[in-house]
Amino acid sequence: MTTMADIPTATSTAPRWTRKHLLALQDLTAEEITFILDTAKTFAEVSTRSVKKVPALRGRVVVNAFFEDSTRTRTSFSLAASRLSADVIDFSEKGSSVSKGETLIDTARNIEAMGVDIIVIRHSAAGSAEVLSRTVKCSVVNAGDGAHEHPTQGLLDLYTIRERFGRIKGLRVAIVGDIVNSRVARSNLWGLTKLGAEVILVGPPTLVPKAFEKLGATVVHDFDSVIGSVDVVNMLRIQFERIKSSQFPTVREFTRFFGLTTDRFARCKKDAFVMHPGPMNRGLEISSNIADGPQSGILTQVTNGLAVRMAVLYLVTQV
Amino acid sequence: MTTMADIPTATSTAPRWTRKHLLALQDLTAEEITFILDTAKTFAEVSTRSVKKVPALRGRVVVNAFFEDSTRTRTSFSLAASRLSADVIDFSEKGSSVSKGETLIDTARNIEAMGVDIIVIRHSAAGSAEVLSRTVKCSVVNAGDGAHEHPTQGLLDLYTIRERFGRIKGLRVAIVGDIVNSRVARSNLWGLTKLGAEVILVGPPTLVPKAFEKLGATVVHDFDSVIGSVDVVNMLRIQFERIKSSQFPTVREFTRFFGLTTDRFARCKKDAFVMHPGPMNRGLEISSNIADGPQSGILTQVTNGLAVRMAVLYLVTQV
Amino acid sequence: MTTMADIPTATSTAPRWTRKHLLALQDLTAEEITFILDTAKTFAEVSTRSVKKVPALRGRVVVNAFFEDSTRTRTSFSLAASRLSADVIDFSEKGSSVSKGETLIDTARNIEAMGVDIIVIRHSAAGSAEVLSRTVKCSVVNAGDGAHEHPTQGLLDLYTIRERFGRIKGLRVAIVGDIVNSRVARSNLWGLTKLGAEVILVGPPTLVPKAFEKLGATVVHDFDSVIGSVDVVNMLRIQFERIKSSQFPTVREFTRFFGLTTDRFARCKKDAFVMHPGPMNRGLEISSNIADGPQSGILTQVTNGLAVRMAVLYLVTQV
Repeated sequence: MTTMADIPTATSTAPRWTRKHLLALQDLTAEEITFILDTAKTFAEVSTRSVKKVPALRGRVVVNAFFEDSTRTRTSFSLAASRLSADVIDFSEKGSSVSKGETLIDTARNIEAMGVDIIVIRHSAAGSAEVLSRTVKCSVVNAGDGAHEHPTQGLLDLYTIRERFGRIKGLRVAIVGDIVNSRVARSNLWGLTKLGAEVILVGPPTLVPKAFEKLGATVVHDFDSVIGSVDVVNMLRIQFERIKSSQFPTVREFTRFFGLTTDRFARCKKDAFVMHPGPMNRGLEISSNIADGPQSGILTQVTNGLAVRMAVLYLVTQV
Repeated sequence: MTTMADIPTATSTAPRWTRKHLLALQDLTAEEITFILDTAKTFAEVSTRSVKKVPALRGRVVVNAFFEDSTRTRTSFSLAASRLSADVIDFSEKGSSVSKGETLIDTARNIEAMGVDIIVIRHSAAGSAEVLSRTVKCSVVNAGDGAHEHPTQGLLDLYTIRERFGRIKGLRVAIVGDIVNSRVARSNLWGLTKLGAEVILVGPPTLVPKAFEKLGATVVHDFDSVIGSVDVVNMLRIQFERIKSSQFPTVREFTRFFGLTTDRFARCKKDAFVMHPGPMNRGLEISSNIADGPQSGILTQVTNGLAVRMAVLYLVTQV
Repeated sequence: MTTMADIPTATSTAPRWTRKHLLALQDLTAEEITFILDTAKTFAEVSTRSVKKVPALRGRVVVNAFFEDSTRTRTSFSLAASRLSADVIDFSEKGSSVSKGETLIDTARNIEAMGVDIIVIRHSAAGSAEVLSRTVKCSVVNAGDGAHEHPTQGLLDLYTIRERFGRIKGLRVAIVGDIVNSRVARSNLWGLTKLGAEVILVGPPTLVPKAFEKLGATVVHDFDSVIGSVDVVNMLRIQFERIKSSQFPTVREFTRFFGLTTDRFARCKKDAFVMHPGPMNRGLEISSNIADGPQSGILTQVTNGLAVRMAVLYLVTQV
C-alpha cells in the first residue's frame, strides 16, 4: 500500500537537499528548485490514490501560523501535511498582540516550545519568515510574507509549466498585472529566470516599475506588443484592497489594456498556456471562457500545489 | 477490533444505493431512505465503543464548506467523518467573495482540485448543493441550503422515530412552528410522507401557508385541535433572525398558541414522543421540563445524527 | 516504538487516581497532584521522539469548548490530545447563545450526545467547569473558568519548579501582579501550599487584598522587601483588559514598583528561577533580558504544559 521506497531521501547516493527552511526562491539554486519539482512529481501520485496517504511524516507536527487570511493556501498546506500523515494544528492569532515583530517571535518560540516540527507562516510583513527561521530551531516554510515572496506558489507554477511543456528553459512567460505588490510575481520571477525562462512583466508603469529589469525581467507596458509571442500568460488577481487609487484609473480601464479578454487571447500563440494564482475576478483580469477553456491550467495549478507542498514539508524535515 | 464485514457495500447481492450525492430527501425513494437508515443502524454501534473508529474512509478527505455558521452540524459531520477514519478539513470563507453564485462554484472547483472526496456544504442559497453537484466530480452532501432542505436532519429524525416506535408507517407527526422558513420541516415532510407517516404542519397562517397541503401535508392553525391525536411532536426553533415582524405578533403570543407548554403537553397521548432539532429556546417553543423529560428524544436525535451522517458519508463514496 | 508499559494505569498495584474530571487544584490532595506530575514525567519523553505519539487514547474524542479566546492553551490541549492519538474537535460558539448558564449546559449536553469522551472547557464564568461536570457523563477538564482556577497551568508550573529544584517542599515562591483577577495565581497558590512551598503574593493592595492570607499565603505590597529571599519569581501578565483603572495608577508606576527589572533582578538569589504564564508584556512586568536569560523557565513551562495536559487527559479517561 504505502511505498516509502519511491520517496527521495537525504541518504540517497546524491543528496541534493540541505535546507531546513523554505523561505524564498531567490535563495535557491536551479538544481535545488529542480530537486523539489522532482520530489513533488513522486508525491503527485499519492493524491490519485483512494487512500491518499503516505506515512512519511507520521507523528510530526505542522503548525499553520496564518496571520493573514488565506483559506485556500492554508487548506492546501493542511491537506499536504495530512497526506504525509502529519498532525496539523491551525494557530491563527488576530489583533494587535502579534502586530509587533517582537511579539511574533515570542509567539513562534511558544509554538516551537510545544514540540512542533514545521511552522508554516503567512504574515503581512516582508521578511517575517526569515526572521522566524533565525529564531526557532524547527523548520519554517514561508506561505507568503508581505510583497516579498510566496515560494510554494512559485514552485507550483514552475511545476505546472514543466508538466505542460516538458521543460522551462527557453519559454517566454508573461506575468500580468499588479507586479509591484505581488509576492507571487516575485517568486515566479526568481524561479523562472533561474530555470532559464524569459520573464516579461506586463502592466502600467505605476504597477510595473522599470526597476524590475535589474532582477532579470523584461518590463513591458503594452500587453498587446508581446501577446503574440509568449508561451505562458500568468494573469495576477487585481487586489483592490492593496492597490492605491493613484496607481491606476479604473477597473474598466485596467481590463481594457491589461485584461485577458477573448479578443486579446485570439492573438496568442496556438498552444499558449493560461495561468492564474486565484481567486479570479472573472470578467476583470480574465474572461470566463478563457479561464474555463482547454488552454487554462488554473485548476491544475491548485492540484499541483498539493504535490509541491508535500514535497516541501517532507524535504525540510529530512535535514 | 474493526469489522468491515458488517458494513453494507455496493457489492452486496442487492445493491440499493447508486447516488454520488445527498442533496434532498425529495429526490429519494422510500427504499433508498430505508437503506440509509439501515446502514446508519450498522454504524450506530461504532459510537458505543471505546475506540470509536472504523477504517471505512481511511485516506479519504471530507471538506466542511460552511458558508453559514453552524457549530453543531459542522461538529457532527466532523466527528462522523473522523469515526470513518477520513481526514476532515474545515473550509469556511466569509464575506462577499463567496456571496455570488459564480464564485461559490470557483471555490468548490478549487476545493475539488485539491483532491477532495466529499464536500459537505451549508449555504444560505436554496439549491446551492445541487448546483455544486453538477459542477464538481466529487461527492456533495447538503448540510442545509437556505429554506430548501437539510436532508441529514430529516434522516436523523426519521431514524429516531423508527427506533422509538419500531416503524414510521401510520404514525401521525406534528411539526410545529415556522414551517415556511424551515428546511428541517421540508426534509421531514418529504421523508415522513414517503415512508407512510401522516404529517401535520402546525403554526399561524403567516408561517404555515395552505400551499403546503399540495406537498402531502395537513395544515393546521390550531395546535390544540390536534395535540391529543399525534404520536410525535417535532417543535421547531423560533428563528428570531429569520422571521419578519409582520409574520407574527410577539413571542409571548407564539408561546401561548404554539408552544409546547406543560398544560398543552398534558393533553398529548401517553406515549407521545417529543423532538426538537436544537438549539432550543427553553420556555418559548418548549418548556424545560418537557425537553428534559422521559418522552423527549432531543439528545437521542443528536446521537443518531452521528450514525446517520456516517452512513451518508460512507454511501456516497461507494458509487 | 510505542510503549504502553510505562504508562501508569488504574490497574497498577496502588491505584491513586479516581477522578473523572479535573476541575480545580483546590480539590486535590498532595498525593493526587504528585501522581499527575509523575504521570506527566512519563509522557514528557514522548514529545522528544520524532514520532510524537502513543496510542493511549486512540479512537477517543476530545472536544475543545473554548468560550474565551486562547490560542495558546487551546493549541496545547490539541497537541496533547493528538499525541495520545485522540481525535480533537474545536467547538467554539460565540455570541449571546452561550452567555446564559442554561444554554451552556444545553451546548455541553449536545456535545456529549455526540459521543465525546472529554470536554475541555474555557469559560469566563467562575464555576462553569464544575457545573458542567455535574451535568454530563463524560470527563470535564477545566482550561480556565473566570478568575477561579486554571488547574493545568498550576500543574505545569509545579512540574517546572520540581524539575528545576528536584522538590517543591520548603521553597519560597513569589507570585507577582494582579492576583485578585488571576486564576493562574489561585491554582498556583493551592498547588504550591499543598506540596509544602511557601507562597508570597506580591502587588499593590488593590490587586492583592489581605484576605488572601486566609488561603495560606503571605501578602506583601513591597516587592523589594522579599526579592532577595525567594527561590521562584512567577510574574503574572498585566491584563490591561481586566484591570479597572481605579486599581492602579499607571503602567509605568506598576513597572517601577512591581516589574522584574534588571535592577531588581540583580538583588535576587543567585539561583532564583523566573517564570511567567505568557504571553509577556516585555518591558512592563518583565525585562526582555531576564525573560530570555539563563534563569528563565518561561519556554520550559510551555513545553511542560504538553506533558501535564497529556497526563490529565489520560488520567481522567482511566476511571
